Amino acid sequence: MKNNDKNTSWKYRIHEIIYEADTKAGKLFDVILLIAILASILLVMLESIESFDTRYHTFLNIAEWVITILFSIEYILRIISIKKPFKYIFSFYGIIDLLSTIPKYLSLFLVGSHHLAALRALRLLRVFRILKLARYVGASNRLLVALKMSRTKISVFLYFVVILCVILGTIMYMIEGPENGFTSIPTSVYWAIVTLTTVGYGDIAPHTPFGQFLASIIMILGYGIIAIPTGIVTAEMTKSANNSVDTNTQACPSCSKENHKDGAQFCYNCGSKLN
Amino acid sequence: MKNNDKNTSWKYRIHEIIYEADTKAGKLFDVILLIAILASILLVMLESIESFDTRYHTFLNIAEWVITILFSIEYILRIISIKKPFKYIFSFYGIIDLLSTIPKYLSLFLVGSHHLAALRALRLLRVFRILKLARYVGASNRLLVALKMSRTKISVFLYFVVILCVILGTIMYMIEGPENGFTSIPTSVYWAIVTLTTVGYGDIAPHTPFGQFLASIIMILGYGIIAIPTGIVTAEMTKSANNSVDTNTQACPSCSKENHKDGAQFCYNCGSKLN
Amino acid sequence: MKNNDKNTSWKYRIHEIIYEADTKAGKLFDVILLIAILASILLVMLESIESFDTRYHTFLNIAEWVITILFSIEYILRIISIKKPFKYIFSFYGIIDLLSTIPKYLSLFLVGSHHLAALRALRLLRVFRILKLARYVGASNRLLVALKMSRTKISVFLYFVVILCVILGTIMYMIEGPENGFTSIPTSVYWAIVTLTTVGYGDIAPHTPFGQFLASIIMILGYGIIAIPTGIVTAEMTKSANNSVDTNTQACPSCSKENHKDGAQFCYNCGSKLN
Amino acid sequence: MKNNDKNTSWKYRIHEIIYEADTKAGKLFDVILLIAILASILLVMLESIESFDTRYHTFLNIAEWVITILFSIEYILRIISIKKPFKYIFSFYGIIDLLSTIPKYLSLFLVGSHHLAALRALRLLRVFRILKLARYVGASNRLLVALKMSRTKISVFLYFVVILCVILGTIMYMIEGPENGFTSIPTSVYWAIVTLTTVGYGDIAPHTPFGQFLASIIMILGYGIIAIPTGIVTAEMTKSANNSVDTNTQACPSCSKENHKDGAQFCYNCGSKLN
Repeated sequence: MKNNDKNTSWKYRIHEIIYEADTKAGKLFDVILLIAILASILLVMLESIESFDTRYHTFLNIAEWVITILFSIEYILRIISIKKPFKYIFSFYGIIDLLSTIPKYLSLFLVGSHHLAALRALRLLRVFRILKLARYVGASNRLLVALKMSRTKISVFLYFVVILCVILGTIMYMIEGPENGFTSIPTSVYWAIVTLTTVGYGDIAPHTPFGQFLASIIMILGYGIIAIPTGIVTAEMTKSANNSVDTNTQACPSCSKENHKDGAQFCYNCGSKLN
Repeated sequence: MKNNDKNTSWKYRIHEIIYEADTKAGKLFDVILLIAILASILLVMLESIESFDTRYHTFLNIAEWVITILFSIEYILRIISIKKPFKYIFSFYGIIDLLSTIPKYLSLFLVGSHHLAALRALRLLRVFRILKLARYVGASNRLLVALKMSRTKISVFLYFVVILCVILGTIMYMIEGPENGFTSIPTSVYWAIVTLTTVGYGDIAPHTPFGQFLASIIMILGYGIIAIPTGIVTAEMTKSANNSVDTNTQACPSCSKENHKDGAQFCYNCGSKLN
Repeated sequence: MKNNDKNTSWKYRIHEIIYEADTKAGKLFDVILLIAILASILLVMLESIESFDTRYHTFLNIAEWVITILFSIEYILRIISIKKPFKYIFSFYGIIDLLSTIPKYLSLFLVGSHHLAALRALRLLRVFRILKLARYVGASNRLLVALKMSRTKISVFLYFVVILCVILGTIMYMIEGPENGFTSIPTSVYWAIVTLTTVGYGDIAPHTPFGQFLASIIMILGYGIIAIPTGIVTAEMTKSANNSVDTNTQACPSCSKENHKDGAQFCYNCGSKLN
Repeated sequence: MKNNDKNTSWKYRIHEIIYEADTKAGKLFDVILLIAILASILLVMLESIESFDTRYHTFLNIAEWVITILFSIEYILRIISIKKPFKYIFSFYGIIDLLSTIPKYLSLFLVGSHHLAALRALRLLRVFRILKLARYVGASNRLLVALKMSRTKISVFLYFVVILCVILGTIMYMIEGPENGFTSIPTSVYWAIVTLTTVGYGDIAPHTPFGQFLASIIMILGYGIIAIPTGIVTAEMTKSANNSVDTNTQACPSCSKENHKDGAQFCYNCGSKLN
């Protein structure tokens, strides 16, 4: 029993270090983790530059293995120290953490797959929690709420945009044709998207007078309808600006949910006591 | 008389399957229709890719004919099963449905016209009704209302933009001239539109110092006035956010109008009983 | 005295035809004027296309002279028929009308100056008055009010943008240098404006890693600060949406000011009686 | 003591001329300063144009030295005439003023560093104070307040955008590869930023069908999420439009802070008497 207690307290300490940022040790761990993530992303980037890779290949390879093994240990500790491990494994961060470690192991069998390690960038989303910037957490929450509220309207809008691009792309394909770079309907639809969103690479551009006339209409259209998503989000944002709740960065020890209300005694998700 | 009744009930059943999505059969029909539309668009796209077309030409041709004939049958059934067929034929969806079938028949006489079959993409607008996503229908309605309300202001704005582009294009034509790619006034106006809408292909770009100076002013202008349509739509959207009514996806059996108020007993358009 | 009366009534009739759109003759005049303006712009555009000009040079030249002389007659009639001719001559439309006629006369001495005839496009702004679309006039007035209100804020914003572009352009010139297309500081400032406004021609683009890094920051900056003019105009527009007054298209016979309040008896500008 | 008084009054007069714009001499000084700044920026720009520099090198060099020495004298006078010189030295304008003078001196040791003199553009921010346009100062203050209020939200948003670009860039690098211009992950991330912000240079563009498909999604995404910063700033701006205070351009003689409330008797920053 005593052994069990000791075991539990050992797990408890690790939980506090890894999952929370209230103690000194927890804060230190989080800062080191953040630096390790940044370093690993930098490594993957440098490795992709050929002139760099040919010179420092061995060093880059070893450094990546070291970081990958450290991340693997961290991942295992996260599973061990939590009460309901499956909740963590299938949570957003749980999946990200797994995806951040496997590419390097995978690269033993699949050449090139280790570039996927750049997915570690998603781990950087933890930074708000790590730095304990409640202000930022609140701001990002309010952003997410406004986006969720306008989700349906924005998807309806984007659906219209895609249909519009399919039709405009087809018409441009018939006007300009393969001899002017509009080699197929999918390519023309791609061009229509490039134009309507005002990106405008210029790798494909209309050459016939009528094609340029239609392109002008598409551009003015795109210029006009960019107002729609903006209008949607702004209307939602002005509404949500008024009713927001302050939350903190404490994580529940049993289900690891965050964003508890300030002063909350119990987890809003699983009901266990917060400490 | 009995025959007449039977005839009516036969038509009535087809109406329910084709026009509505409340019964199981109606839902199934709509899902199959949606898949058929997507498949047919994919076919037209694949056919336009030369390497694909040369290899699978016969297969693609047959598949398109099958889908076109199916769509034709559906179109005829739609006309037969409705009480006031002309209302359907000249409605938005009626015209789209017709335009979706004729290009393939037309291609027998006019080479290349079958690409117009991509207009079927417009049929995809039915998806909201098909999936019975009242939430989405509501969202798209509110979008349309906000757009309708700001229609006059946006057309005034676009009219100003076009006049501005004509004048700026002419001035740039006089500054840069044909030797720098501004071959004629229409081309220069096209360039002005490309620049003002911040698309910026780069196929035509100013080379003289004074041309670059004027182009800079046009860009900053375009950067500033993109705010106007946004402001218009946003102001309208914040207003319309408050007063919206919930509607459902039921279609009137006699005039096929949709978007009846929840719980409505009679069609708001022709006054016939809804079932 | 009788002669004087007759003279006045003759002028009065012309004033009614040219300046107003309430009588049948006045409406007809305005529609013909609009068509003539559109035709003349088309002529100037076609003339600038070399292949067109070489073939139809004589026809285009004669047609332009006919329209120019008609516009000159109209301009003189406008001056004669109004009570205070100088008010018209130095008004916005008076200057536009003059600028629309002189380029062709100027082309007798200055080769190429007749292209300036495209400035006639500005005369198209009369369309709202011509079509008597009070709704559109109201919409455009409300737009102008919102723009006037946000004028100071937008000029402050654009001033900041220009200063920012000067500094960013200089830094990029020092990083990339003439060997990467950044041939001088003015060119680099031009590039910075092209980038910050998200136009992005691609005629000049950074090649060094550090240059691309800085360019990325400029783009994200530009992406972020485009929100500012939008925010300004939107805030102004939501305010002005509430307090707008309905005006009509009647022109004052003595000072030719428009936009009188519905039911106004006297000109708000010069106090003379409206009829 | 008398000497001391005289000394003080001498300093006092200089303070009034240099720091304030209420007296005639102060106004004149400010206008001359503004012209000198503009001239010096023009000089640096012209010098960077090779064809200009080779012809007028000696003249440009001398002119720059003259302006640099004048700016140095002005900087020293500013330090002498103020009561708390360190407050000025480490203030925003103090640092700008210093940075505006040293590049030319630096160019004696470091070739090319004199281009940094373009940083003088920042001095142009004084224009609002110089022209005594309280209206503009108020407008720019309100802009800054709205930006400060939305600072956290916008930084959270930009942080998300950067993470998104890292991930999208990596995926595009794996799809397109070095043979299509995506030479390394950093380059691909640069491309993702160019695309997401709708700049779209076109120096790098996807060539594989799948790459173009993913690029289309990125563009539509960028088109959609540009609404977010706009929504944030607009919401903040509509709020701040109501509660703004009128300030004037008087500068405190002891700490040189500006933007005192109209009618204020004492400096809000250091408490000394305003005159």
